Amino acid sequence: MRLHIILLGAVLLFRGLDAKAQTASTGFTVIPLGVKGGLDEANLSSYIVTAKGSSNYICLDAGTINAGLQKAVANKLFTEQSAEEIQKNKIKAYFISHAHLDHVAGLILNSPNDSPKNIYGFSSVIEIMKNNYFTAKSWANFGSEGDKPILNKYTYNYLTPSKEIEIPNTELYVTPYILSHVNPYQSSAFLVRNNNSYLLYLGDTGADEVEKSNQLELLWKAVADKVMTQTLKAIFIEVSFDNTMPNKALYGHLTPRLLMQEMKVLNKLSNGKLQKLPIYITHIKPCASCESSIKKDITLSNTEGLTIKYAQQGKAIQLP
Amino acid sequence: MRLHIILLGAVLLFRGLDAKAQTASTGFTVIPLGVKGGLDEANLSSYIVTAKGSSNYICLDAGTINAGLQKAVANKLFTEQSAEEIQKNKIKAYFISHAHLDHVAGLILNSPNDSPKNIYGFSSVIEIMKNNYFTAKSWANFGSEGDKPILNKYTYNYLTPSKEIEIPNTELYVTPYILSHVNPYQSSAFLVRNNNSYLLYLGDTGADEVEKSNQLELLWKAVADKVMTQTLKAIFIEVSFDNTMPNKALYGHLTPRLLMQEMKVLNKLSNGKLQKLPIYITHIKPCASCESSIKKDITLSNTEGLTIKYAQQGKAIQLP
Repeated sequence: MRLHIILLGAVLLFRGLDAKAQTASTGFTVIPLGVKGGLDEANLSSYIVTAKGSSNYICLDAGTINAGLQKAVANKLFTEQSAEEIQKNKIKAYFISHAHLDHVAGLILNSPNDSPKNIYGFSSVIEIMKNNYFTAKSWANFGSEGDKPILNKYTYNYLTPSKEIEIPNTELYVTPYILSHVNPYQSSAFLVRNNNSYLLYLGDTGADEVEKSNQLELLWKAVADKVMTQTLKAIFIEVSFDNTMPNKALYGHLTPRLLMQEMKVLNKLSNGKLQKLPIYITHIKPCASCESSIKKDITLSNTEGLTIKYAQQGKAIQLP
Repeated sequence: MRLHIILLGAVLLFRGLDAKAQTASTGFTVIPLGVKGGLDEANLSSYIVTAKGSSNYICLDAGTINAGLQKAVANKLFTEQSAEEIQKNKIKAYFISHAHLDHVAGLILNSPNDSPKNIYGFSSVIEIMKNNYFTAKSWANFGSEGDKPILNKYTYNYLTPSKEIEIPNTELYVTPYILSHVNPYQSSAFLVRNNNSYLLYLGDTGADEVEKSNQLELLWKAVADKVMTQTLKAIFIEVSFDNTMPNKALYGHLTPRLLMQEMKVLNKLSNGKLQKLPIYITHIKPCASCESSIKKDITLSNTEGLTIKYAQQGKAIQLP
């Protein structure tokens, strides 16, 4: 009996050390499962993120899941061959920036075959999941509240702005921030932390100037110190339209000009330390020449000399 | 002035002859834009149908549109290169069998770039489109009723069971029938007519035996004469699971065994004339071995000697 206790103690000690060793990593692996701002059902906003060296992913927005994981499998990013099994076993939680269908369709469509897990969002987001999507009439209620029968596969977790939470079964922590997406409609940004390194993901957002809001300013103030200490490893931010789109037709989105206007604010708050930080452009709305036009406008508008990159579906991004 | 009137008369006469010539065709072209019963966001139920020789399509269900049209373009089924332009210009109306997300996601996600047109459905379907999807909170109200602001791009048209309607801007007529999809939840079948030829598309449906319903029996009685006269050119019907799935886990879907049970009823009503009619299987729910297992079960269950075919995404089906 005594030997059993000693052995159990040793096992627990090793497990503890092992967990500590895992959590001592910094940096992230990001796999974009979908990167576009519309139309193609196979490539809508969704990014899975894990602490470097771990395979416990969280999913930031969920426009496309299965088709994105199929691409990731084709690109040999997983040893498993089945997109369905990867979703079930490796995605531990969903964070939804806002409940427009291009950010949640993949989650809903794949819910019958998914495993139980948490969905995190502000109450404005969870309410829509509950009242519009996970209902008996439009689908089936795989959520933990709302229409009966409640299948309770997904547990709704209500986020509090600026309050960091630990994500079970992962090495990650997340702090959410409110964004304005056609004021007063709320979207969200998620600041993901692995030990002392950070990644910032923004859902759809308008510029403060256009939205008559200060949500982005508040966000920049919250992360500026992490830019200065170089603990922020990347920003994922949307540019939906090129510079020809008039403000009144933006519907809560950014153009290259407005992106750069916002980045100037952050750069100033960070004492000019923004240049080396990779800024990944997301949510480009497709049309014949939109992507090339947005890229051209970003290059022209980039007077701050920022490091601009473009998220690509199924291509892993390693952040140190 | 008189010459003008004569010329105008001649133009109108030729136009009339031309229109008559067009509508004198029989048969259909069908392009499946998505054929699966779940998971892969790029391949969910949607079938565009036109009178043979015409390019005025109607869209039966709309789970995937853009990704399916991209496949059709890659397979050179259109002279146009842009899926978006084809959707805008060639799809004249949508018919929604039921409003589960895997049958409407493509319509909603592509709505911002689509052109104005009609959406047809039973009131049970339109109500969900109006209250759950085309709302200000979950998307934007592109419909003609409901949440303000009403953008009025799509005009809702309420169907009456068994009542044929003419579809504007096409050569087609449609008669809708009620199906049972976990009784009392309603789905629909659409009988499409081009002059004296017919095509029957069924949305998700359970078997009468399992559903404790007679909706399929009523449908078979309505089309049996068209099987006998060989004016019915094809049936599109779902088989979601293989024969190992117990009845209580079918959730309003068919297995090969239940399909054949229903086809026996139709064959009997049609005096044994069903054998040559192509029956296209739709809505197979994907898993590692599901498709091969369903195909095997269908072959084994096909004691009536029916002509079974499998709809393929982006591959045109010509019906005489």
